[in-house]
Amino acid sequence: MQKKIILKARAFLEEAIRDRFVSAGFPSCVKLAELGCSSGTNALLAISEIIDTIHEMSQRINCESPEFQVFLNDLPETDFNNIFKSLPAFYEGLMKEKGGKLGNCFVTGMPGSFYGRIFPTRSLDFVHSSASVHWLSQVPAGLKNNKGHIYMANTCRPDVLKAYTKQFQRDFTMFLGLRSEEIKPGGRMVITITGRSIEDPSSKDCCDLWELLAKSLLDMLADGLVEEADVDSFNLPMYNPFEGEVKALIEEEGSFNLDKLETFEASWDPYDDSDKTRSGQNVANCIRSATEPMLATHFGDAIIPDLFARYANRVAEHLSMEKGHHFLVVFSLTKK
Amino acid sequence: MQKKIILKARAFLEEAIRDRFVSAGFPSCVKLAELGCSSGTNALLAISEIIDTIHEMSQRINCESPEFQVFLNDLPETDFNNIFKSLPAFYEGLMKEKGGKLGNCFVTGMPGSFYGRIFPTRSLDFVHSSASVHWLSQVPAGLKNNKGHIYMANTCRPDVLKAYTKQFQRDFTMFLGLRSEEIKPGGRMVITITGRSIEDPSSKDCCDLWELLAKSLLDMLADGLVEEADVDSFNLPMYNPFEGEVKALIEEEGSFNLDKLETFEASWDPYDDSDKTRSGQNVANCIRSATEPMLATHFGDAIIPDLFARYANRVAEHLSMEKGHHFLVVFSLTKK
Repeated sequence: MQKKIILKARAFLEEAIRDRFVSAGFPSCVKLAELGCSSGTNALLAISEIIDTIHEMSQRINCESPEFQVFLNDLPETDFNNIFKSLPAFYEGLMKEKGGKLGNCFVTGMPGSFYGRIFPTRSLDFVHSSASVHWLSQVPAGLKNNKGHIYMANTCRPDVLKAYTKQFQRDFTMFLGLRSEEIKPGGRMVITITGRSIEDPSSKDCCDLWELLAKSLLDMLADGLVEEADVDSFNLPMYNPFEGEVKALIEEEGSFNLDKLETFEASWDPYDDSDKTRSGQNVANCIRSATEPMLATHFGDAIIPDLFARYANRVAEHLSMEKGHHFLVVFSLTKK
Repeated sequence: MQKKIILKARAFLEEAIRDRFVSAGFPSCVKLAELGCSSGTNALLAISEIIDTIHEMSQRINCESPEFQVFLNDLPETDFNNIFKSLPAFYEGLMKEKGGKLGNCFVTGMPGSFYGRIFPTRSLDFVHSSASVHWLSQVPAGLKNNKGHIYMANTCRPDVLKAYTKQFQRDFTMFLGLRSEEIKPGGRMVITITGRSIEDPSSKDCCDLWELLAKSLLDMLADGLVEEADVDSFNLPMYNPFEGEVKALIEEEGSFNLDKLETFEASWDPYDDSDKTRSGQNVANCIRSATEPMLATHFGDAIIPDLFARYANRVAEHLSMEKGHHFLVVFSLTKK
């Protein structure tokens, strides 16, 4: 799924890069950050896109290709070793593709939460983040009475929906403020998040996927495999905003101009398998990779395989009745 | 051992920092690199010393404490995850000690060999390396006929000693050239390496420790536990230079002024245990942590515990007859 989203954001990246460097020229070293890079190979995919585009642009105007210093960011618990071991092959691939013309490229790891300062003041030229900024800094403060759910849903109490909305407003505003200190004036940021298609926060296109996970947990509760108190107290630190919310918060925070915003859909199943059983399994694998650490911390490791087997079945059943789509919001910002 | 060496180099660090920043002033963000940081807690010890000193200096002259961007460097196979997980506690410790007065501090990981470019051109203010730069980029080219040894020794053939010397000359010169591209003019470098006390390259103070390891391998060969061809083809990619060699190479390479050079000794056993058996074990643990990956790659994992048990005994036996010391060379350089 990550790969599809990055490819979809390509036009945004190209436009933002062109706008940034055609007007201001290339610095001798372009400083890039990938926020929420995770530990897979996708971490380097967007970076590779950005380097490609800048390199080609420099060749077209007969300039020397600049150096690149790349900061891969994620939480300190992330498996950076895995990414780092793949770097020699990544550099070799770049060299092979571009020959000796590409400027030096240095990929570093920056462990830390993007809800705190992670880069020196006015040090970055370009920031990218793919499917990360919809994760909140914490489960919403004051979230109670969300019995039977693990996220927003259309049968949630209004105060639950309000608590989620407030937490996102606070976190996203903080995120913009922190990045505005770190990005050079005129620097760009391209961000993709999963959002929702309508204003109603219990919109099915952001909530269905998690209701199916909640139901799988309730199935396990009915079978005596998890504790009721554990299910009641588990909630996802995530929010899928409507595009209007994103626009309003950017304007209100005031540090960035919103250059462009678009929305698009992506199937739950990145392989779009026609076999619903396999499709359910594919979706379960994706969701497992994103949520396993927090579920394991809360419920223990032991329940994970059973939970995601049940979840795969529930997703397959759902997909046999209707399609499932993530609703994505991609936007490009310029630091004032 | 690492800790002792870092504490010994403290005076060098303080002097170099004072000289660097009193004349040139503080940049808004001081960029530091620790080369060959390994994966333990020592990685952050020297960094913490440098940050402390700069912070105190800024307070003394009523300046705002600058920001710090710290690059921890080691090979891509290093366990960076371990260091990264310790960062939240490291930041908390800094905050507690300095209160709100310390500038933002951002620790990043830079995987890569220091025998290649790892930082953008003229980007670093200060480079530190502790007990790493005596490791060569490879086992000396053209090293043959070192039967019965794994490093230099006084019974080695002269061409073996020459091959080691040449490889160090090439590598150390390359190291200086690469760093001279990365360090800002006027920037400093403080380096500690294990060297030797006399000009003779088979000096016992650098070779004894490794001859005991070679003998432990030969014991295992006699017991049929390792292959003769494997023992014959194993050599350490390391060189312990005489201080005169270090001085000459710095002068010849020409990018740096040598501000100061000193030598000191440190016991093989960092705990200086009076019980020789325990002392042998301590030394074996140190040497194992530095050499296990390359021994395991060459001989397989299985021999490691037996090898270091035998080695601990041989070291204990040696220490009951005479003391064992590492001979260290610490020097401070300024980029011209």
